[in-house]
Order: sequence, then C-alpha cells, then structure tokens
Amino acid sequence: MKNHIAASASALVLMSQAGTASASESAAPEALAKVAPALEAYTKEDVFGTVWNDEQLSKRDRSLVTFAALMTRHETDQLAQYIKLALDSGVTPAELSETITHLAFYTGWGNAVAAAEAAAPIFEERGIDPADLPAADVELLPLNEEAEAARQNNVQSNYGDVSQGVVDYTEDLLFRDLWLRPDLAPRDRSLVTVAALIAAGQPEQMTFHLNRAMDNGLTKDEASGVLAHLAFYAGWPKVFSAMPVAKDVFESRAEKEAE
Amino acid sequence: MKNHIAASASALVLMSQAGTASASESAAPEALAKVAPALEAYTKEDVFGTVWNDEQLSKRDRSLVTFAALMTRHETDQLAQYIKLALDSGVTPAELSETITHLAFYTGWGNAVAAAEAAAPIFEERGIDPADLPAADVELLPLNEEAEAARQNNVQSNYGDVSQGVVDYTEDLLFRDLWLRPDLAPRDRSLVTVAALIAAGQPEQMTFHLNRAMDNGLTKDEASGVLAHLAFYAGWPKVFSAMPVAKDVFESRAEKEAE
Amino acid sequence: MKNHIAASASALVLMSQAGTASASESAAPEALAKVAPALEAYTKEDVFGTVWNDEQLSKRDRSLVTFAALMTRHETDQLAQYIKLALDSGVTPAELSETITHLAFYTGWGNAVAAAEAAAPIFEERGIDPADLPAADVELLPLNEEAEAARQNNVQSNYGDVSQGVVDYTEDLLFRDLWLRPDLAPRDRSLVTVAALIAAGQPEQMTFHLNRAMDNGLTKDEASGVLAHLAFYAGWPKVFSAMPVAKDVFESRAEKEAE
Repeated sequence: MKNHIAASASALVLMSQAGTASASESAAPEALAKVAPALEAYTKEDVFGTVWNDEQLSKRDRSLVTFAALMTRHETDQLAQYIKLALDSGVTPAELSETITHLAFYTGWGNAVAAAEAAAPIFEERGIDPADLPAADVELLPLNEEAEAARQNNVQSNYGDVSQGVVDYTEDLLFRDLWLRPDLAPRDRSLVTVAALIAAGQPEQMTFHLNRAMDNGLTKDEASGVLAHLAFYAGWPKVFSAMPVAKDVFESRAEKEAE
Repeated sequence: MKNHIAASASALVLMSQAGTASASESAAPEALAKVAPALEAYTKEDVFGTVWNDEQLSKRDRSLVTFAALMTRHETDQLAQYIKLALDSGVTPAELSETITHLAFYTGWGNAVAAAEAAAPIFEERGIDPADLPAADVELLPLNEEAEAARQNNVQSNYGDVSQGVVDYTEDLLFRDLWLRPDLAPRDRSLVTVAALIAAGQPEQMTFHLNRAMDNGLTKDEASGVLAHLAFYAGWPKVFSAMPVAKDVFESRAEKEAE
Repeated sequence: MKNHIAASASALVLMSQAGTASASESAAPEALAKVAPALEAYTKEDVFGTVWNDEQLSKRDRSLVTFAALMTRHETDQLAQYIKLALDSGVTPAELSETITHLAFYTGWGNAVAAAEAAAPIFEERGIDPADLPAADVELLPLNEEAEAARQNNVQSNYGDVSQGVVDYTEDLLFRDLWLRPDLAPRDRSLVTVAALIAAGQPEQMTFHLNRAMDNGLTKDEASGVLAHLAFYAGWPKVFSAMPVAKDVFESRAEKEAE
C-alpha cells in the first residue's frame, strides 16, 4: 500500500469523472478511520479506487453482484449504501425489484424481506412509485419448452421420490414463472444467481448456473470479473472455492466450441 | 402467478379456517408492496397460501423448521414474526425454550443469544413465566447406553487425537445431557437439527442426523415436506445440495427394511 | 448439568482470580434467564466456567478466535461484548485493528465494516486514539521470496486463465502486503484465518491455512483447542466438518517430521 494517498486522490477523481459512483456513496464508512486506518486506505484505494473502476465488469453489473452478495449473506446493515449505488449506476428500480424477488427463491425469503425493508425508504425518498414497478402478473417471456422438459425430466427422475414438492415448485414457480418474468433479463438473473452461489459458499451448485449464465450472454471476461469483485465482498476463500468450478465450466465450454 | 388475487383470497380463508396462523402474523411485510409487488404476491399466494397449508408437514412442524432455519442464519430481524407464529401453531414455550438451547450447540452460541433476545419480549407480553420453563436441572430421559457407546467409540477412535476436547464435550454435553432433556421430544430435536443443517448449507453432516430423525419418528413424508418448506426459507440451492443426501438416506433405509 | 449452581459459582471465582474476564463481560445475557434457563446454566457453567478457562488455549487466543468467528458470521449484535473481552484479555487495540483489516479480505468487506462500527464506540470510550493504531503505510515484514514465488506460480498456472484479477490481487494485496503488516503476528493472522474458515463452513480451504498456521507457530495443542472452542461459537457441525481436515494435516505433518 505504497503511495496510497496519491492513489486514493486519483481514485476520487476517477470516480467523479465516471459520474456513476458519487463520492458520498463510495466513501469509506467513518468508523474505519477510527478503528482500522489500513482498512480505510484499502477501501479507498483498492476497492473503490481500483476494483470498481476495472472495466472487465461494468459498474452496473458490479453493483448488482455486490447487492446479491450482501443480500445473500443477510448483511442488512450494508444494503442501503449499495442499493443507492446500484440505482446511481444504472440499475433500474424495476430491475432491483425483480432482483429481490429472484433472490428470495435463490437465497431464502428472510433475505428478501430484509432487502425490501432496506430498499423501501430509498424508493420512497426517490419518488419511485410502486405502480411503476413490475406487477405480480406480467406477460412472461417465451419458454424453450424442449430445454425445460429435459431439465424437468432429469430432476423428476432423480428427485421425484425424494421430495415431489421441491420438484413441482421448481418447475411451476422457478422455470415456468420467475425466470420468464420480463423486467430482469435472463442474463442478469443468472448474474445475480451466480453471485449469490459464490457468496453463499455453494460452488457445488454453480456448474448449472454458470453455464446458464454464459448461455444467457454473460461473457467469460465478465465471469472472471465477478470472481475478482466478489473476493472483496464475499472474502477470498469463497472465491477460491468457486475457481475450480469456473475453470471446469470455461474449459468444457471451450472444448465444445472447438468441436 | 395467474389468478393470484383469487388464490390469495382463498388462502386467507383457509388460514382463518385452520385458525392456527392469524392473518396478521402471516401477512406479507408492508415493504414488499412498496418494493416488490411480485414478491408480495408470491408470499401471500405461494408461501402462506400454499406451502404453509400443505398437509405433508403440520403447521407446528413448519414453524419449528422455519424458526430453526432463521435462527441458524442469524436472521434476527425475522425471528419475532416466526416465534409468534410458532407459539400460535402449537409449539409450547417449553419446546421453544429447549429449541433455542438445542440449537446453541448445533448452530453456535451467538445465534441462541440473539434468538433468546428476540423471544424475551414475546414471552413477557404473553405472560410466560420463566419459572414455568424447563429448569437447568431436569430428570433426563433414559439413554440407550449401547448405541451411545458405539457412537462414542467411533468418534473417540477417529478424533481423539485431533481434539479430545471436542470428543469429550460431545459426549458429556450433547449425548449424555442435551439430547436427553425431556421437554423437547427427540423427534423434534432431530427435526430442528436437520433443518439447521440444511439451512447452514452443511449436507455433509446430514446423513447421521436424518437417520437419527427417522429413527426418532420423523416420517419420510415429513422429511420430504421439510425439504420443500426450506426451499423457500433457506433458498433453492441449499435444498438442492441436501436432496442427494436425503435420497441416499431414504434408499439405504428402504434397502435395510427390505432385507 | 448436575450441580450447575455450585459449578457456576466456582466458575465466577475462577474468572475473578484469573482477572482477565470480568464478571460483567462474561455474564450470560439477561434474556437467557427469561427464555432459556438451561442455556443460561450452560453459558455460565460450561462456556464461561469451563471452556474459557481451559489452558489448552489462552484466553487471549480464545477471544481472537471468538471475535473472528462472530465477525465472519456477521453476528454484529454479539461483537461489542467480545471486543471488550478481547481488549480485557490482552489483545492490543493494534492487533484488533489489524484483525478486522485481515478478515476483510478473508470474510468479506461488509463484515469488516460492521466490525469497525461495533469497535468504534468501544475504542472511543477507552480513549484509544486512531493515531496510535497501525497506519496504512507501515514497514512490512521481510518476505520469503522463494515460498511466495512457488505459491504464486502454482496459483497462476492453475487459475490465471480463470481470473487473472483474482490471481493478481492475491499476490499484490494479500501475500506481498497484508500478511507482511507487522502489527499482527503471522501466527495470529493464521489463527484468525483458520477460525474464520471453520466458522464459515469452508473446511475445503483449511489445509493450506492450518499448515501455514503451524508453520507460523500455532501448536497442535492450540489447534485442538481452537476446534473445541469453536464448537460452541460456530456450532458442532462446523467443527465436525473441520475435524477430518485437521486430522489429515496433523497426520501428514507427523509423517514428515518422522522422515
């Protein structure tokens, strides 16, 4: 951490040039200066100065990924700052609304309730009218019936005798409903799902969803950026457990493309 | 989510007929309407309208399972609602008291302290007197000495040289004390332990405890219901990591019964 | 839990003799008496009466391990009590400051921000001046270049094509910077890292760090004590998932020493 003063000054300049992360939202919390000056410097220089400005992943995607990680980990005290940053970075209220609903299913209902409670005052403050948010009933995106039938048959034959309830809810609520809601793109649903799996320490569930993410348009470069970004927000060990899974997915997709 | 208005209306009727979940306790939090109308509809229609009314698992068991999951995940802001719902669904104060104590050992002391802090005002409000709760010293249930000796020998030989402290505390505090406390049935101790393991993302510890749960009287049908219920409260990926373990347990028990 | 009254009385005496854990800091929270008298007794008798006094691991190390576990699990409501206990047990403010910074990287930024927010009023109350804490820029400890080159080559060849960002940040920020900061000994950095991995349920990342901890001076006896201590603060299942990894590390080190 040499030259951190110069570096964090230039970081502030960069951020104000980019215009997407206001100095106030990305400032290090005041407590850091009182308790851990080194952490304050890492936050200013490396996290907000370097990581958030790395073009491998857009600021908008970074804010979705960060929000997904914090919501997954029930870090409710951290949510307001990053909800504001998301809205300031180009995530629409409709997309944030759908992200919360999506991650209710992928990280648990209590996380979603807490996220909605963190977002409600911010939405109100910014004059975001519930009537402008995606309604419960919407025209769903078209479904690839063949791919869904294959997925469903696979799950039914594996787990129908373990919990038919899980199998049925998965089909009815997730793959014939939630994933087809139009106000969050399938690519973004995959992005926040993958981020949630890494943040939750569930690399064993990542193969399906990282493949799906890349089928839905997430590039390998962006996926690499998600891993590097989450090292900071979910911690290094979570990312190092996800790396071999990502490696396998990248390699098996490259092999298939080479055929 | 077609016809969600009709469905949630009928859900309210069902709940009021059942008389166990009052409309106020199972209502969707107000923030959902402001931030995520779709999530509000899923909550009313699917979670409270369908899942909680599925007879595969009783409301009482669902409330224990939900409480265990939330306590395990330190979702302290969600606890009060579900403590009330548990007490309204037939969980006795003594059982809730013992559940908190039990899960101190199975999910960590801090979770139990936070759960006690969430429960204290509700117990006070409802006039539940500490003197009526299970005392620290109680007459323990009889122990199956043979089974315990086998468990202990196994753990001692595997891990005595790794941490004798863990081995000793496990025997003295868990299997010769906690599990024998009479005010929470062994079947219920197992139920909340399995729920905690699924919610914590620890399927690798589930084989022993799901077998123990079924030895203690949990039916396969109820276990299937626990998985479906927890998909909503712990998130789909946690349940999908638990499904292969449940499948193995169900199959190996069926094989043994067939012999 | 027979004779718990006598035992907890003697525990209080022990604690006051030891003089490192004041009765007020280690007292069971009031809510326990109202909700779970058995848990209150276990807390007084077993946790504070026995575990914290077991000489296998010093009180100072126990308080670092507990703090690491709670911070990792974002149990923010539990932090103040154990920050005070750490400062009362011989952890210096500088060490606590560096622990928070260290675990930002190993458990995620939001955990570190919340920990700093919990510590700030305690630091202020005790007159700990930010100017006396380790600065962002410090003279780093010397690096074993050969060992670092081997580690870096290994990670680069495995994961350079997965996420060069992760590989680079790992080298630049962790192994050529954070681990070399002098105000928390490498042995203590390893201690809190191992505790964090156990508490997070990531035994798959423990082999490297437990070996590093023992290379840095943590004894096998102390590591055994960490496992027993964390059974209470992270829950039994987390520790039982860590036991086979610890066993492998202990055995392979013993074999190497025998050669």
